[in-house]
Amino acid sequence: MLCIVFEILYVHLKNAHRNWSDFWMSVSLNRSYNLPLNLAGRAFVLSFFFFFFTDVFDEIKCIHLSLFLEEERRMSHMGFRCLEISRWVICGLIGILTGLIACFIDIMVEKLAGCKYQVIKENIEKFTEVGGLSISLILWAVLNCAFVLVGGIMVAYIEPIAAGSGIPQIKCYLNGVKIPRVVRLKTLLVKVLGVICSVAGGLAVGKEGPMIHSGAVVAAGVSQGRSTSLKRDFKMFEYFRRDTEKRDFVSAGAAAGVSAAFGAPVGGVLFSLEEGASFWNQMLTWRIFFASMISTFTLNFFLSIYHGKPGDLSNPGLINFGRFESGLLGALFNSINYWLTIFRIRYVHRPCLQVMEALLVAAVTATVSFTMIYFSNDCQPLGPEHNEEYPLQLFCADGEYNSMATAFFNTPERSVRSLFHNQPGSYNPLTLGLFTLTYFFLACWTYGLAVSAGVFIPSLLIGAAWGRLCGILLASFTPTSPIWADPGKYALIGAAAQLGGIVRMTLSLTVIMVEATGNVTYGLPIMLVLMTAKIVGDYFQEGLYDIHIKLQSVPFLHWEAPATSHWLTAREVMSSPVTCFNRIEKVGTIVDVLSNTSTNHNGFPVVVQVLDSDEPAKLCGLILRSQLIVLLKHKVFVELARSRLSQRKLQLKDFRDAYPRFPPIQSIHVSQDERECMMDLTEFMNATPYTVPQDTSLPRVFKLFRALGLRHLVVVDDENRVIGLVTRKDLARYHLGKHGLEELQLAQT
Amino acid sequence: MLCIVFEILYVHLKNAHRNWSDFWMSVSLNRSYNLPLNLAGRAFVLSFFFFFFTDVFDEIKCIHLSLFLEEERRMSHMGFRCLEISRWVICGLIGILTGLIACFIDIMVEKLAGCKYQVIKENIEKFTEVGGLSISLILWAVLNCAFVLVGGIMVAYIEPIAAGSGIPQIKCYLNGVKIPRVVRLKTLLVKVLGVICSVAGGLAVGKEGPMIHSGAVVAAGVSQGRSTSLKRDFKMFEYFRRDTEKRDFVSAGAAAGVSAAFGAPVGGVLFSLEEGASFWNQMLTWRIFFASMISTFTLNFFLSIYHGKPGDLSNPGLINFGRFESGLLGALFNSINYWLTIFRIRYVHRPCLQVMEALLVAAVTATVSFTMIYFSNDCQPLGPEHNEEYPLQLFCADGEYNSMATAFFNTPERSVRSLFHNQPGSYNPLTLGLFTLTYFFLACWTYGLAVSAGVFIPSLLIGAAWGRLCGILLASFTPTSPIWADPGKYALIGAAAQLGGIVRMTLSLTVIMVEATGNVTYGLPIMLVLMTAKIVGDYFQEGLYDIHIKLQSVPFLHWEAPATSHWLTAREVMSSPVTCFNRIEKVGTIVDVLSNTSTNHNGFPVVVQVLDSDEPAKLCGLILRSQLIVLLKHKVFVELARSRLSQRKLQLKDFRDAYPRFPPIQSIHVSQDERECMMDLTEFMNATPYTVPQDTSLPRVFKLFRALGLRHLVVVDDENRVIGLVTRKDLARYHLGKHGLEELQLAQT
Repeated sequence: MLCIVFEILYVHLKNAHRNWSDFWMSVSLNRSYNLPLNLAGRAFVLSFFFFFFTDVFDEIKCIHLSLFLEEERRMSHMGFRCLEISRWVICGLIGILTGLIACFIDIMVEKLAGCKYQVIKENIEKFTEVGGLSISLILWAVLNCAFVLVGGIMVAYIEPIAAGSGIPQIKCYLNGVKIPRVVRLKTLLVKVLGVICSVAGGLAVGKEGPMIHSGAVVAAGVSQGRSTSLKRDFKMFEYFRRDTEKRDFVSAGAAAGVSAAFGAPVGGVLFSLEEGASFWNQMLTWRIFFASMISTFTLNFFLSIYHGKPGDLSNPGLINFGRFESGLLGALFNSINYWLTIFRIRYVHRPCLQVMEALLVAAVTATVSFTMIYFSNDCQPLGPEHNEEYPLQLFCADGEYNSMATAFFNTPERSVRSLFHNQPGSYNPLTLGLFTLTYFFLACWTYGLAVSAGVFIPSLLIGAAWGRLCGILLASFTPTSPIWADPGKYALIGAAAQLGGIVRMTLSLTVIMVEATGNVTYGLPIMLVLMTAKIVGDYFQEGLYDIHIKLQSVPFLHWEAPATSHWLTAREVMSSPVTCFNRIEKVGTIVDVLSNTSTNHNGFPVVVQVLDSDEPAKLCGLILRSQLIVLLKHKVFVELARSRLSQRKLQLKDFRDAYPRFPPIQSIHVSQDERECMMDLTEFMNATPYTVPQDTSLPRVFKLFRALGLRHLVVVDDENRVIGLVTRKDLARYHLGKHGLEELQLAQT
Repeated sequence: MLCIVFEILYVHLKNAHRNWSDFWMSVSLNRSYNLPLNLAGRAFVLSFFFFFFTDVFDEIKCIHLSLFLEEERRMSHMGFRCLEISRWVICGLIGILTGLIACFIDIMVEKLAGCKYQVIKENIEKFTEVGGLSISLILWAVLNCAFVLVGGIMVAYIEPIAAGSGIPQIKCYLNGVKIPRVVRLKTLLVKVLGVICSVAGGLAVGKEGPMIHSGAVVAAGVSQGRSTSLKRDFKMFEYFRRDTEKRDFVSAGAAAGVSAAFGAPVGGVLFSLEEGASFWNQMLTWRIFFASMISTFTLNFFLSIYHGKPGDLSNPGLINFGRFESGLLGALFNSINYWLTIFRIRYVHRPCLQVMEALLVAAVTATVSFTMIYFSNDCQPLGPEHNEEYPLQLFCADGEYNSMATAFFNTPERSVRSLFHNQPGSYNPLTLGLFTLTYFFLACWTYGLAVSAGVFIPSLLIGAAWGRLCGILLASFTPTSPIWADPGKYALIGAAAQLGGIVRMTLSLTVIMVEATGNVTYGLPIMLVLMTAKIVGDYFQEGLYDIHIKLQSVPFLHWEAPATSHWLTAREVMSSPVTCFNRIEKVGTIVDVLSNTSTNHNGFPVVVQVLDSDEPAKLCGLILRSQLIVLLKHKVFVELARSRLSQRKLQLKDFRDAYPRFPPIQSIHVSQDERECMMDLTEFMNATPYTVPQDTSLPRVFKLFRALGLRHLVVVDDENRVIGLVTRKDLARYHLGKHGLEELQLAQT
């Protein structure tokens, strides 16, 4: 494989450098490094040295240099290029694997659902003549329950985190909040099999959300070059075993997932940037996009008038179509789901109850669908342009089919496609109205069940149904105007509005819809309805994913600080007093602090005590809990280092091998003697942590966190003394509610 | 207009708040603000207070509060919402105006070029029979020269900054480098009229680059709510009269320009983010996009195999088509243009020479075109599917037309379209080869002339021509294989490769090409050739825009610090010693420092001297040159404030009115008496500037600059004493050349 070849090449080059540098070191060390040469001369000398003998600088490094920086300083130009190449290789692998998984899910769902519908169809046809359709109903319900049972058991008993679409979890992960087990191999397996079962089981769910989650898991796995679950280490991509790199790859994986789910690569990129990238400025991008859209629209509009063909353009009627109600419906959906989720958190927390609820939903879905189809008398002629795979004749005349069945007796994807593309007149308004109503409640009930399930396709389906309904009604009011002609367009806009009202994504959703429909001219109408849906929806209730994130009380950082938080300063936001360590600290103190469950900090400032004590000490670094744990585990104590000089030094590899499942402090045994030893943190701490003065305003602190992806920010006074520490939780606490700034209660993670 | 209505509303609401707050202040001031309430209680009190009585906090503000922060703290929830709405309104206006401008350019070019070609065509037809075609040549050359003369004179004499495509200038502007006069109304007028003249004048140029520049100028104008050139102030959008806000709008304008030029709104967004947004991470986004593309491709590939129709997919032949040479050709183009530009900077700097060169190019273009058409004997039948507007029969038989003329005797846009879409067999290889060769040199000579001109369309044309040529040649080698059939696809890929090789844009160019062709399936091949072109091209020569930026020696910050710069620290990079001011500083000192042309700093740390002097003083703020100038202009001296207590305080409005054309220090008269006065900077400085310790590594400093859009970063020691200042120039100096890290010489701006 390419990556292995490159790894060998890389190691080889690195070693070659090392040998040369040994030779040259004797030469180079004779001259002082800080000699003030003139500019050009220095540049020349440096660049010359750097290209060939980077390793030399190892020996001249200054005292404060941490282990992590050291590696980067040691790496040559070629080393960086190899890293870059391996990043591309990994992204390529992520894309291929995600595509394959999507392919597998697609084919399996199609096969299984195809078999199921075929069996039921034959059964229904058999019993339509002779009566006794209740047997068909039972068959349908049993088949659905069987699939859902398998899926539900896997999710509830094997890996509960695989429930739902996984998008809230991925949002949190990309936001920097660690949720346990979310990117494990087991989760992936359960997710993939689970979603196949739920879709084939006829639930009102889609397979798109789970695909995004799957892409993310693939990325997390591939980029680490090993599997902790399988206990296999391929000894490659070791450089990427750290949070920031892994997060970057996970965002690529999520993008690949969107891309595979909707065929929308650009939409995928925007999705993962919107949700994840720490450097993203959401509102600005969204406004820029607005300006672009308006610009294209204006140009096309006036040019088409100039050329005398104003009809060439996208249908202007679509734009006037207010769509106030879309946000309302979305908010209603979210509110119902919110209460349902709270109910579930309280009462349905045991796995067996969860599986039973899933079975109940499956049975109800089948029953409702069957009832709707049974009592519907909307028969449509079976034309040549007709593209249903399982047309149900039922009580219709020969050569006709039951129109309600195209919506219910089908996988949701196919139903959406029919609503978008079928000829005007394929559905009558009553059918659509009833379908919207029942499907709305089914979908709402389904999301949050303990099965792998996405909410995209059900939302699209609801929106498409009532969009088409509106289109038909409008057409009947203004029968002469040709611009109201195609109800399929209304279905598209309705679908966008409903989905936007539920998930409240903006930029990326527009692009996904545009890419999925392959028609740029619908861009502006889609964007406008998404905006309306978001604004209206936000007034009543948050987005579905945000609700679920909030219910889990995770410290989720939004794109910007609340608008009215300018008067809050770091001093008011920070937690204080802070637990600090000295540069040379007693092991016992460290163990005690780490074991103290009430604080549970993850980062600790390292300070130098001023001699005449008492006043706060000066900041000189920051060290993480995980680093301290590795140090304790390897017993890197000053006393031991003296006695065992020959012992190998702790290397970066030791930190990487422990990543990401650092052992808890309880599992590390420290004897009473060892508690009296000292630990020198100088070499391992981050010697230049980001700091802010105490008067810094909250938006500025927030911007630092978002832009630099920080987790800890030390607040210092004029004398560089530590007076507080700001963490994500301190920032996520503030929230702009309807009545101004509010403080939230967050879980202790 | 909506915005005016909203402004009135806004002012009204603000005043209403003020009155309420006067009433409530007496109540609220009785209780201490910092009372330690419990969390929930505090949140409630704060949010309650905040929504209604934000103005109260004016009076309780701490001493260090600067004038600028003050406004934001004073602003209510509603105020922020209004600001947000006005941002959207502005973006809408930018989109509409940019679209209209694009529309105007389109129509004018079409009209003028149409007339020109009609006249010449009639003339040629008249003389083909009777001989004496040299008269037609002269007519053609004279018409071209006439147009170019008008355009050239405008650019050379009225506004030289309007020359070229404007993209390098916009890149610099968005990067944070101020280039004088680049977003003025005059520039816009000259640009628009100039580009109409150059395209109508038959030069090898496009109108896309100038459209991007136009969008940017529109944005800069609209967002400020006034025109300094026209001396009109509409008294709105005053909040946006600051660098960061203006830059955000300009990036929206550039996006709108791209969107109007190519009909690619998403591409526009990505373009302006790529080039401008300070928060963008280029490589990561590009890799994410790669993963997405691969994912879609894999999915489609395997699904199409599964469905037994592998041909449904994008043509796999296109992907195997290596395109190594594209980067080579692009690099060649850039190298030639590089030397030409250097020649021009040295010798062709007088306006009259510039106009003469433009005329020469116009005449040569006409002559070469005519000669090529004259000697070509590639006659093609005039079929029904034929879509040229000006088919030249010349010496061809009746019912046939000269194929070379479709490429030369046309606006470049139409030529590109013909190359993409015309039937196989419309061109013979010799025609294409000759066309590519001549057009290559013409385009190369043309870019950099003193006319408004874009390089996109000429590059696309060259690429399309040789792409189509390759397609034809490949088809002739493998006549049996159907996948080599359509040369139009090769033209598309060739065009992408050539353009990518010249401008080296990646993500946004892919999206623009995909959106412009409206076919997502070409995404992966386009992306792959763009990558190849970039990698190959970068090996030989930088991108065209980067070359032009570099030749102007501006301190341009790239996306990331050079990979091998980890061992450089802030201490080595910073400029030191720094000119600092005391919090209360003598006017004479300030005037002297500002007048000193040799330093020419734009930001000055403000310090508090420790009593027992000598050692460096502690940092307490940062103040800008422009702020000092406004203070001097308004004579905000401590002594005067005492004597004239009733005088109104300096307000934010005074800073905004001066923005962006602050007077030079020389124009401010300070008498000898006034020089002895003192100025109190406390209220006006930024009291919490970003700082770093001296050991911070260069990439970290770089990341701060890019992520936060900084211009000055103060380097402090452990005691918070100023020891240096890092500016953009210090960072832009380091550059990763072929031989490792290099230091550049930058202009003193």
